[in-house]
Amino acid sequence: MIDLRSDTVTRPTPGMRRAMAEAEVGDDVYGEDPTVRRLEERVAELFGKEAALYVPSGTMGNQIALRLLCPPGEEVLADADAHIVTYEGGGIAQQGGIQTRTLVSERGLLDPDAVAAQLRAGDWHTVGTRAVAVEHTHNRGGGSVYPLERLRRLRELTRAAGVALHCDGARIWNAHVATGVPLAEYGALFDTLSVCLSKGLGAPVGSVVLCSAEQRPLAWRLRHRLGGNMRQAGIIAAGGLYAVEHHVERLAEDHANARLLADLLDLPAPETNIVLIPVPEALPADEVARRCREQGVLVSAFGPRTVRLVTHLDVDRAACEQAAKVVAAALAG
Amino acid sequence: MIDLRSDTVTRPTPGMRRAMAEAEVGDDVYGEDPTVRRLEERVAELFGKEAALYVPSGTMGNQIALRLLCPPGEEVLADADAHIVTYEGGGIAQQGGIQTRTLVSERGLLDPDAVAAQLRAGDWHTVGTRAVAVEHTHNRGGGSVYPLERLRRLRELTRAAGVALHCDGARIWNAHVATGVPLAEYGALFDTLSVCLSKGLGAPVGSVVLCSAEQRPLAWRLRHRLGGNMRQAGIIAAGGLYAVEHHVERLAEDHANARLLADLLDLPAPETNIVLIPVPEALPADEVARRCREQGVLVSAFGPRTVRLVTHLDVDRAACEQAAKVVAAALAG
Amino acid sequence: MIDLRSDTVTRPTPGMRRAMAEAEVGDDVYGEDPTVRRLEERVAELFGKEAALYVPSGTMGNQIALRLLCPPGEEVLADADAHIVTYEGGGIAQQGGIQTRTLVSERGLLDPDAVAAQLRAGDWHTVGTRAVAVEHTHNRGGGSVYPLERLRRLRELTRAAGVALHCDGARIWNAHVATGVPLAEYGALFDTLSVCLSKGLGAPVGSVVLCSAEQRPLAWRLRHRLGGNMRQAGIIAAGGLYAVEHHVERLAEDHANARLLADLLDLPAPETNIVLIPVPEALPADEVARRCREQGVLVSAFGPRTVRLVTHLDVDRAACEQAAKVVAAALAG
Amino acid sequence: MIDLRSDTVTRPTPGMRRAMAEAEVGDDVYGEDPTVRRLEERVAELFGKEAALYVPSGTMGNQIALRLLCPPGEEVLADADAHIVTYEGGGIAQQGGIQTRTLVSERGLLDPDAVAAQLRAGDWHTVGTRAVAVEHTHNRGGGSVYPLERLRRLRELTRAAGVALHCDGARIWNAHVATGVPLAEYGALFDTLSVCLSKGLGAPVGSVVLCSAEQRPLAWRLRHRLGGNMRQAGIIAAGGLYAVEHHVERLAEDHANARLLADLLDLPAPETNIVLIPVPEALPADEVARRCREQGVLVSAFGPRTVRLVTHLDVDRAACEQAAKVVAAALAG
Repeated sequence: MIDLRSDTVTRPTPGMRRAMAEAEVGDDVYGEDPTVRRLEERVAELFGKEAALYVPSGTMGNQIALRLLCPPGEEVLADADAHIVTYEGGGIAQQGGIQTRTLVSERGLLDPDAVAAQLRAGDWHTVGTRAVAVEHTHNRGGGSVYPLERLRRLRELTRAAGVALHCDGARIWNAHVATGVPLAEYGALFDTLSVCLSKGLGAPVGSVVLCSAEQRPLAWRLRHRLGGNMRQAGIIAAGGLYAVEHHVERLAEDHANARLLADLLDLPAPETNIVLIPVPEALPADEVARRCREQGVLVSAFGPRTVRLVTHLDVDRAACEQAAKVVAAALAG
Repeated sequence: MIDLRSDTVTRPTPGMRRAMAEAEVGDDVYGEDPTVRRLEERVAELFGKEAALYVPSGTMGNQIALRLLCPPGEEVLADADAHIVTYEGGGIAQQGGIQTRTLVSERGLLDPDAVAAQLRAGDWHTVGTRAVAVEHTHNRGGGSVYPLERLRRLRELTRAAGVALHCDGARIWNAHVATGVPLAEYGALFDTLSVCLSKGLGAPVGSVVLCSAEQRPLAWRLRHRLGGNMRQAGIIAAGGLYAVEHHVERLAEDHANARLLADLLDLPAPETNIVLIPVPEALPADEVARRCREQGVLVSAFGPRTVRLVTHLDVDRAACEQAAKVVAAALAG
Repeated sequence: MIDLRSDTVTRPTPGMRRAMAEAEVGDDVYGEDPTVRRLEERVAELFGKEAALYVPSGTMGNQIALRLLCPPGEEVLADADAHIVTYEGGGIAQQGGIQTRTLVSERGLLDPDAVAAQLRAGDWHTVGTRAVAVEHTHNRGGGSVYPLERLRRLRELTRAAGVALHCDGARIWNAHVATGVPLAEYGALFDTLSVCLSKGLGAPVGSVVLCSAEQRPLAWRLRHRLGGNMRQAGIIAAGGLYAVEHHVERLAEDHANARLLADLLDLPAPETNIVLIPVPEALPADEVARRCREQGVLVSAFGPRTVRLVTHLDVDRAACEQAAKVVAAALAG
Repeated sequence: MIDLRSDTVTRPTPGMRRAMAEAEVGDDVYGEDPTVRRLEERVAELFGKEAALYVPSGTMGNQIALRLLCPPGEEVLADADAHIVTYEGGGIAQQGGIQTRTLVSERGLLDPDAVAAQLRAGDWHTVGTRAVAVEHTHNRGGGSVYPLERLRRLRELTRAAGVALHCDGARIWNAHVATGVPLAEYGALFDTLSVCLSKGLGAPVGSVVLCSAEQRPLAWRLRHRLGGNMRQAGIIAAGGLYAVEHHVERLAEDHANARLLADLLDLPAPETNIVLIPVPEALPADEVARRCREQGVLVSAFGPRTVRLVTHLDVDRAACEQAAKVVAAALAG
């Protein structure tokens, strides 16, 4: 099977397995796991942030980060297609007590002017906007990348309004590789980030929340309450550390493979590792996925009218060429 | 003082006071207040709904209604400027656990095509849209009125998608009077409504949630948990009942007065009783409000760049003429 | 019918109706209702507290007060039979996010030593006790009254531990009349109180939260979110104010009537206005209530094995004598 | 250092590391991780339950299980010293919306008669008891074990009342080994259990929720919302599976070592692997812990007046003998 459903399906490489097998561990609830600590320090360093917290998933990472920035009963602005309002079980509202107000945005990328028009100071009678959340790269936007200039404008206008800025950076590594913008430059733009180790980077488990040193104790407490405090988490953190050290630059291959897929399927070139294929009503995405599966290729029905292909370290160029043929046939059929 | 800040500032008329003074009452927590019951039955009848529940405020009414339609962790679609996401303390998220996803809409009126594009079925991994909420008339939209045809399209498309439709009808009475559409015709379009007695209708306290007979026990329970179960509420319900019987048709006067105000201020004619005045950055709304207050007219700063005037039963035509002069001078000054 | 189900069933007296009919009102959401303000000031003065907030119910009052004292995720200690964990819809947990830890207590009155043994400071890993809540008088304890000395010890030990003390004072007026302890002496013992106007005092609607001036803005905000912000609430606040001025001392009659009932039924003398009657398994409380109802007396089945009678301003001595006969017959039958 | 702070501090054995290094994995969010599935099936089989769900922590496991049994706004009964109300960040209330009502119990073990007296059916006005939660063995009770007969009585009385029964079985393996009661016999008594792999069993990460097949989809959804859905979790699940296969019976050694410790310290024999040492006010637990640390032994201050020692697979008999000397000296000093 060629699995293009998601970059979450990667399996650990031999080197990564070795790193996990040999990881030095301790009880991380007591803050004593040296590998977790190294991972947190390393990711914090890469992004130039003061503090980091390893969490079991990006869903937990985003919930924690947004609660650091926004108290219950106040609001976060995000695009209407963001992961945080689509794939996180409504946890930001149900568990965080945070209201989300959303903007429909082209390719999921918030327009600074549209954001500026929606920010509300809040007063005795009005809910206030406490944070804006961007997703970079944007999953449902097709791995779309924020131009650096746009992020800077979002940072300026939010700062001017006393509003925090969060980055759901599950795939920020892809943005970094696609644009050459240093991770630390991204890090400087956001109050908090949640970055994922188990998507393109290929680690088995986990994300890292980046925040200030002052925010970290609350982040820890929120992770505890959510049930994300793990004991000898160094085992999986070792996989994450290995991924950070070895799998960032190679994302360029995934991007090249995604462009190849798009080219072979006569689609516009994607910016990173996600290819979205619009399908006609007569041939719904489910049916396309079914046909591909029969021919050994797994793709995602991404809503009824879109098929998603995601490249990653477990599919090489040849696999993508083969997959393109299968998908083309499925679309033609 | 001529008070145009809101139609919530009205004081009970002598007839309404008499009705309250003489109200037959009982313990409504035991369901034994005959006046509350009459009010609920009367409003249910007007809108053609099976059941009604008297609540202390529209904020409580909307929270209850939306929880009837949407479980915690799922989502409600609304326009980005809706009362439910602006003026309700984030209660829908913090207390209801409901995620809101919003659409920026012209004059606050949801566009059916835009709604259709955002409805999500929800599945094992995705938050589902369980309800769409319209606000009719729309406060921040300037008392804007949904054309009946648009509501019908919203009803059709939500029904087709298995999604509920709620109306924040705080000022639905104004829509009814402005359009001539029978209340029951509105009632038939929505699964739930929250209609206010203490805005244009001039009652001192309360709103009514309209729902199905099957939903009412849960509505009661939610009101109980929110702390909205009152004892001899018949006293204030009597004011609401009086308002429903005597103050609906007279809203036409408020609309005429609002048109007069707009005309005298060279503004487009409002549809109902709310006049929004855009102000330049150099003369912020706070300053206009301050100047008017000095001249005996109270208006609302409705954000930094908008002044709001609302007509109601405590301001007559002459007061509006006088107010227009004061406001014009404040804007000119 | 002689209604002894609860002291919540009282109907407003002519004087109270007159006060409500003539009440001066304004829009209390803008803080402009002079009667609400007078009520709040008067109750604050009686209890010697800095600030007060009128709310539609004791359920809302307790929720607001406890959230003032305890953030979400921390805990409040209370007796296991308290109103706050029995009759408030779980709102303290579901809406307030507050954990309750309870102690089984004789007649609902917390034992200071038992409380001291359960207080927890809380740390990075442990939930901390932020408040202790007493109910005075205690409903399910049979209108039981805290000896002043016991309250003082609770105050001392909570203060020493940095823990707040809340009083669910729905019937604190009865305690005051029964013991002669000044309301202000009670007020000085608690950080917050919620006192009810619509139980023994006979007002139709409402409770008052007592707190510090610093806490009041958050109390207002919480009331807003709960949907308890009412407009011309002065109408019903006038009933509350009348009750505070005219119906406190007369509670002594209710107490005398309760003692009379107990005496006629061969039960121990109650401390205030609640008489609990244990019933055998063979004659469940529901059945006793049914028999009494047939003979024109309403009583409460208070769980399967207890019948509750509550005296109040709508039942006089003669009615109690008659009720005692009916109840005795029902129990005998 | 001899670390007796907790049985959570164990490090994976070489065999367990090997199992993790070689684990077959897949994307568990898609339900495709074969090792996670094997672990879940194996634990379900051991306890005779239909379904299981692997979660990152016991804190998450308990929250999920209790939400399966109790809707928001209703209540769970537990002992006042339970892990769920002490060490889970208040998540059951703040995230689950569940009210906890607690009973002070000897050694943390609920008394069936006391439970029976507190169960409440719930009705239109009253919060209902939906579940009782036991902790077996009980951490703060000193590793105390429920006699099987007592669990049976709890099961009978809860079943008769239509109330569910949950077991926080973080250390149920210790109970099984101490009593010889088969795990499946325990499993049959409870509607849900949460059993921990990273305490006495020595796995690095995780717990397993046991429930019915019907409940599992909701359990999955709740784990998703809490952020507990991990990708190639088979790596750490392999450690759990290894622990289940190899480390259950050896808990007998931990129990023997705990008895040895107690014996050497002149304390009553513990039932399992936890030794609680009462300390005088003049020598607070913190100080004892500090003294022990200086001599190479780590123990827990378990509140101000109790020291806790926990035996586990990383401390052998000799280490315990040495530790006993150090602790005795610290206590004597």
